[in-house]
Amino acid sequence: MSEKLTIGMFGFGVVGQGLYDIIKTKDLNLEIKKFVIKNENKERSLPAHLFTTDANAVLNDPEINTVLELIDDADAAFEITQRALRAGKNVVSANKKMIATHLEELANIQQETGKALLYEGAVCGSIPIIRNLEEYYDNELLHSVSGIFNGSSNYILSKIFNENQDYDSALKKAQELGFAETDPTLDVGGFDPKYKLAIVANHAYGIYVKPEDILNLGIDKLGLADITYAREKNYKIKLIPLAKELSEDEVVLYVLPKFVTKDNLLYGVENENNGVVVKAAFADEQFFFGKGAGGHPTGSAVLSDITALRYGYRYEFKKHLKSQQVKYTTDYEITVYLRYEDESVLEALNFDSISERFYGVDFKYVIGKVNLQNIIKNRELIHRDGYFLAELA
Amino acid sequence: MSEKLTIGMFGFGVVGQGLYDIIKTKDLNLEIKKFVIKNENKERSLPAHLFTTDANAVLNDPEINTVLELIDDADAAFEITQRALRAGKNVVSANKKMIATHLEELANIQQETGKALLYEGAVCGSIPIIRNLEEYYDNELLHSVSGIFNGSSNYILSKIFNENQDYDSALKKAQELGFAETDPTLDVGGFDPKYKLAIVANHAYGIYVKPEDILNLGIDKLGLADITYAREKNYKIKLIPLAKELSEDEVVLYVLPKFVTKDNLLYGVENENNGVVVKAAFADEQFFFGKGAGGHPTGSAVLSDITALRYGYRYEFKKHLKSQQVKYTTDYEITVYLRYEDESVLEALNFDSISERFYGVDFKYVIGKVNLQNIIKNRELIHRDGYFLAELA
Repeated sequence: MSEKLTIGMFGFGVVGQGLYDIIKTKDLNLEIKKFVIKNENKERSLPAHLFTTDANAVLNDPEINTVLELIDDADAAFEITQRALRAGKNVVSANKKMIATHLEELANIQQETGKALLYEGAVCGSIPIIRNLEEYYDNELLHSVSGIFNGSSNYILSKIFNENQDYDSALKKAQELGFAETDPTLDVGGFDPKYKLAIVANHAYGIYVKPEDILNLGIDKLGLADITYAREKNYKIKLIPLAKELSEDEVVLYVLPKFVTKDNLLYGVENENNGVVVKAAFADEQFFFGKGAGGHPTGSAVLSDITALRYGYRYEFKKHLKSQQVKYTTDYEITVYLRYEDESVLEALNFDSISERFYGVDFKYVIGKVNLQNIIKNRELIHRDGYFLAELA
Repeated sequence: MSEKLTIGMFGFGVVGQGLYDIIKTKDLNLEIKKFVIKNENKERSLPAHLFTTDANAVLNDPEINTVLELIDDADAAFEITQRALRAGKNVVSANKKMIATHLEELANIQQETGKALLYEGAVCGSIPIIRNLEEYYDNELLHSVSGIFNGSSNYILSKIFNENQDYDSALKKAQELGFAETDPTLDVGGFDPKYKLAIVANHAYGIYVKPEDILNLGIDKLGLADITYAREKNYKIKLIPLAKELSEDEVVLYVLPKFVTKDNLLYGVENENNGVVVKAAFADEQFFFGKGAGGHPTGSAVLSDITALRYGYRYEFKKHLKSQQVKYTTDYEITVYLRYEDESVLEALNFDSISERFYGVDFKYVIGKVNLQNIIKNRELIHRDGYFLAELA
């Protein structure tokens, strides 16, 4: 019943090795024929004839019907993915930056070629959120999708709130453990969860939004004052991407730190774990929880995509192809906490209303309602030392 | 792109009414043409011409291409479902007893007729577990599925462990709130979660197992001694159905109360909520959480099934149709806690080993390893006042 897959894999890191091991022992009707690697001198655990540095050895091999793209470089990954689809091969990728940046183009190539590109591993590791949004939740009935999409920043926030560490020590610990990169900007700056949000928004609502058009503020300016404020009010701070339906035809998207209370399902998601909350019709919340990024969780999602290809599964873009299109808007009022230094920032943000003002020797903050568009316009003013903005429930 | 559904609905309770309301306001390409009800004299919130007591008004109407079966009576529901499929209509049902009891027969009728029967609402309310097992998790890679599938008994256990109530008061409270029936046996006896487990096992591993061939022990014999034991060890007791792969070709299934510790993802599932833990390849745990039974959660699952029918979705039984069949076994050693009165029960159960024995004035218990087959053989001996058996991690 299932189609046999003959696979060419780009990259042979933790995910690739794990996949090879598991595929070998199971009766999955899969064969990995060739690995394309960058460094041909590195010692490998498998026979040398399986490896090549020549991409064409995979892309021009008619026997290979499936390409696994598991490399870091987003530009090279895009090149490989495009070429593989046009060469009549299905592709599985876990490269969120590549997917998010080229989402519409990749969808078009799939429509043209009739081939499939699956990328469950690109969003929230092992949690099958793309598949559920694609297949299970009709956009008409989907109120919002939010979650913890970034394991590194969540690990740091857990250390801060559960172990009383400060931001710098927590970041250092995360880097030592390999949960955060030497340059952690992608994670703690909220760029990584933004790529994932752009992909989620597409499968949730059928919209194509460029990552650069979505606001992201991260936790990189989080200070002791903000942590103390959160603790006093029994909040935790989490970095939360949100896709939310505002009306029949408008959706808002952003990534912001958020003060969350105990009754929020994301409150208990700790360390490198990920969680997704889906609010659907009948005002019901569904919660998906699992390990976020990392070799094994990503491998498990990649493997599910591969096994689905054996049965001809592909994303159908049916939400995008619907007659009544949903539009992306940034005209949305958010209640925020803002620690600031210069009063002029308040003016620039043009708060709709301010409900609290605090002036102290060491810092000051306001709580009020502000339009997302004003935050976007003044992102650089806010993203400075001495400033921290977070959403309040 | 989507096919228009013209719906005939059997039953007009909370779910039916909620569905009608939501379908009316949304652009879903659906129309409910007729409701078949039992009591024609009951006052209805909708125009009289929408109602009939004649099943044939739906089953013989060629314009109606979709039947929603939302009645309680499992035998009548089976009759309706069969006839509707044979009349060329797709069916959505939430009747777990009917589905579990006739699973194989219903699959055969679907294969014969080419029509679809979907029943996400029958298992764990709003949690899309059937769809995920069917589409996302290959059986070769699925280590186990377990969870809290029954809201009523979980509500009772929450009252006991979080509010120090005894079993009888908690049950009474659950009945007052409508979380448990006047005869609560189906829920607290573990029959309801067993029906759901039989359905889950089919979509997880492609096996057909009759509910009567699966062991269920419930929480109806839970006593103060057991509760005290659990509290002293920082356990909670949860009623947990389990489907677990023992080898490449054997799966074990049972429903037992279980002592769970804080690190178990089901520990925090409280009240009428449901949770499902899926262990898949790469030793990874995924957790799904949402509202269990009840009008709205069930309605949301039913609605997702309906919207999927517009795109021709059907379960494909591909796990069952695989060449290498998985078999159901009961030959499995479980570590249990058993409170008992008569020593002869220990002999009958023929423990493989006993690691603890406690003799007190009021009660006695043993902890040891016992084969599931021996529990099944001696179910009536254990399911008596004075006895309580639960799994230990």
